[in-house]
Amino acid sequence: MDKKSEHFFNCPLPYENPGIISIAHGGGGKKSRELIEKVFIPAFGNEYLEKMHDGAVVPIPGRRAALTTDSYVIDPHFFPGGDIGSLSIHGTVNDILMCGAEPLYISLAFIIEEGFDFNSLAKICVSIKEAADNAGVKIVTGDTKVVEKGKCDKIFINTTGLGAIRPGINISADNITAGDKIIITGSIGDHTAAVLSAREKFNFESDITSDSAPLTKLILPLIDNCGRIKMMRDPTRGGLSSVLNEIVTDKTFGISIEEKSVPVKQQVNAIFEILGLDPFYAANEGKAVIFVSSASADKALEILKQNKNGKDAAIIGEVTENHPGKVVLHTQYGTNRILDMLSGEQLPRIC
Amino acid sequence: MDKKSEHFFNCPLPYENPGIISIAHGGGGKKSRELIEKVFIPAFGNEYLEKMHDGAVVPIPGRRAALTTDSYVIDPHFFPGGDIGSLSIHGTVNDILMCGAEPLYISLAFIIEEGFDFNSLAKICVSIKEAADNAGVKIVTGDTKVVEKGKCDKIFINTTGLGAIRPGINISADNITAGDKIIITGSIGDHTAAVLSAREKFNFESDITSDSAPLTKLILPLIDNCGRIKMMRDPTRGGLSSVLNEIVTDKTFGISIEEKSVPVKQQVNAIFEILGLDPFYAANEGKAVIFVSSASADKALEILKQNKNGKDAAIIGEVTENHPGKVVLHTQYGTNRILDMLSGEQLPRIC
Repeated sequence: MDKKSEHFFNCPLPYENPGIISIAHGGGGKKSRELIEKVFIPAFGNEYLEKMHDGAVVPIPGRRAALTTDSYVIDPHFFPGGDIGSLSIHGTVNDILMCGAEPLYISLAFIIEEGFDFNSLAKICVSIKEAADNAGVKIVTGDTKVVEKGKCDKIFINTTGLGAIRPGINISADNITAGDKIIITGSIGDHTAAVLSAREKFNFESDITSDSAPLTKLILPLIDNCGRIKMMRDPTRGGLSSVLNEIVTDKTFGISIEEKSVPVKQQVNAIFEILGLDPFYAANEGKAVIFVSSASADKALEILKQNKNGKDAAIIGEVTENHPGKVVLHTQYGTNRILDMLSGEQLPRIC
Repeated sequence: MDKKSEHFFNCPLPYENPGIISIAHGGGGKKSRELIEKVFIPAFGNEYLEKMHDGAVVPIPGRRAALTTDSYVIDPHFFPGGDIGSLSIHGTVNDILMCGAEPLYISLAFIIEEGFDFNSLAKICVSIKEAADNAGVKIVTGDTKVVEKGKCDKIFINTTGLGAIRPGINISADNITAGDKIIITGSIGDHTAAVLSAREKFNFESDITSDSAPLTKLILPLIDNCGRIKMMRDPTRGGLSSVLNEIVTDKTFGISIEEKSVPVKQQVNAIFEILGLDPFYAANEGKAVIFVSSASADKALEILKQNKNGKDAAIIGEVTENHPGKVVLHTQYGTNRILDMLSGEQLPRIC
C-alpha cells in the first residue's frame, strides 16, 4: 500500500473482507453507505457532497452553463503520468474549458467489477481528489454500481462536468474565417505513447509520460486576457487530425498545417515509428487546439507560454479559402498531403 | 425490427456490417461521427446537441442548479414496462426532482460491448427519446465508448441530469420535525417484480410491469402548490426501508410506518413471497417518499392523486419523538418490528 492511500485505512473498514469490492457495495444498503461514508466522503468531502442527497444543489454564477460528459475505460488503469482517476477529471475539466466555461462541479460515477481490489480503488480516489483540487473543481455527487465478475473490466468511471460560461464568450466553429491562426498548446502524442508503454504486450522502455493535465490555469487566463477566442477543442480520441476535420467538414474554408511547426517529442516519434502509428491521430489529454484571429495570435501565444502546460505552444497553421472542407498538411519534405479523419480502428481504450 | 426503430434505417448506414457495433464506433474518428450523425442526432436532436462540441452550452434559469448522476447496468436490458434506455432517463429525472428542481438537461454516456447489435441500440435510443420528451428534458451532450468483447455486459448507460431549483425550495432531512407525515406516491416493489419476471432463470408468468416513469408532472405541481415540502427521496436501490433509514440515521427523531397503509400489489406480494423477498427492500423507479407537515398532508395527497403516477398515493406513517434514529413498522398483525437498512447482498443489477 502506498502512503497516499494509507489514510483511508486509518478508519477501520468493517467489511468481512476489506480487500475487495463486493456486489453489496453497489446495492444501496449498508455496504453502499459504508463505502460512501468511509471512502468517498473522506476523499472528496465538501459542503455539497456531504448532504448525501439524490443529487447536489449547487450555486451557478451567470445564466449560461456548460455541461459535458465522458466515460473512462482506459486500459491499463495506471500509466506513466496518471491513472484512470486523474484522467477522468482532466478529460472532463478540459471539455468544460473548451466551451469557454470555468469548471466548477463534477459528478462521479463508478462501475466496478465484483472482486476489484480496495487498495486500487483508494489510490484512484486519492488521484481523483488531487486532480480535482488542481483543476479547481468539486466532486458534488456520485454513484456506484457493482457488476458480477466478468461483466466489466475492473473499473469504468463516468464524470460529468458543469461549468459557468464566461460572460461574452462564444466558442464556435461558425466564428472561424480565412486568415485565422491555429495554435496547439504543446507536443502531440504523449498520452498515447505513455499508455502504450504501460501495456504489457508492448515490450519497450521509455520515460515518456502522459500529458494528462487540467488546463484550467492555461485556458481561463487566455479567455480573460486575449480578446476573442474563436474556437477551441482538445485533441483527445482521434487526435489533432480528427479535431481539425470535425471543425472543417462542410465549411467554406480549409485548414493548412505546417508539419515542421507541430511539436512532437523525439521519443514519442520513435515509439510511433516502431509501431507504425501517426502522431496526428494519437490521443492527447492535456492539449488544446485554438483558433484566433491573425491579429491576436502573438498575444495568445504569449499568454499560453506563461503556463507550464503551454510553454511549447506554437502556431501550426492557418485557415484558408483554398481547399474548403479539407485539412492539408505541408510536410517537412515540401510535399502536401490531405489529413483525413481517423478511419477504421484506432487503438482501443486509450482514454 | 420493430416499427419504432425502423426510421433509423431509412438513412442507409454505410457500415461494412451494419448489424453490430465495432471498436471503431468509439474511436473518435469517422465511425464515431457516423454513429452521432446517423443515429444520435436523428434520435435526440435539439439546438444544443447539434452543435457537436465537446460539451453543451445551456441557459440556466435561476442561481441554483441540481446535478445528479446514475449509471444503469440493469439485467436484462428489456423488461416489462421499460428498458435500460427509458430507465436511464426516469431514474435521473426523478433524482433531479427529489432535489426540488425542474429537470432540464441530460448528458448521455454509453459504454458498449463490441458486437452489440445495432437494432437493440436503435430501440434503446427510441426509448430514451420518448422518455426524455415525457419527462420534459433534452439530451444535450453525450459520449460513446466501445470496449472489447467480454469487457462489459452488452451496454451500460450513464445519465447525468441538470435542473433548476425552484425558487424558495429547500429539500433537506434537516427540515423534518416530529409530527410530520410521510407519504408514498404509490405501490412498492413493482419494478423489482417486473425485472425478476424478465430474468430467464425465474420461470414464472405475471402481468406486473415496472413502475419506471418520470415524475415531472407529479412532483412539480406538488412543489408549486402545496406550500413547504420538507424532504423527498425516491426509493430505488435498497427500497423504501433504506431510504427511510438514510433519512433517520443519527437524527433526534424516529419514523413510524403502518404496514397496512403501504400499497403493495397482490401479484407483487405473491412473487415476493415465492422468492422470499421483502417489498420494503425492493427497488422502485417511479415512486417518491415525501415528508410534509401534518397540516399540509391532505393538500399534498389531493395534488398527488390528480396525476396517474400518484393515484394510489397514501400517508404511510409519521415522524415521532420515540425511538430516535430508528424506523419502526407497525405490522398488520399488531406487532412492531424495526425496519433496518438493507444488509448484505440485494438482487444485483436491478437498475
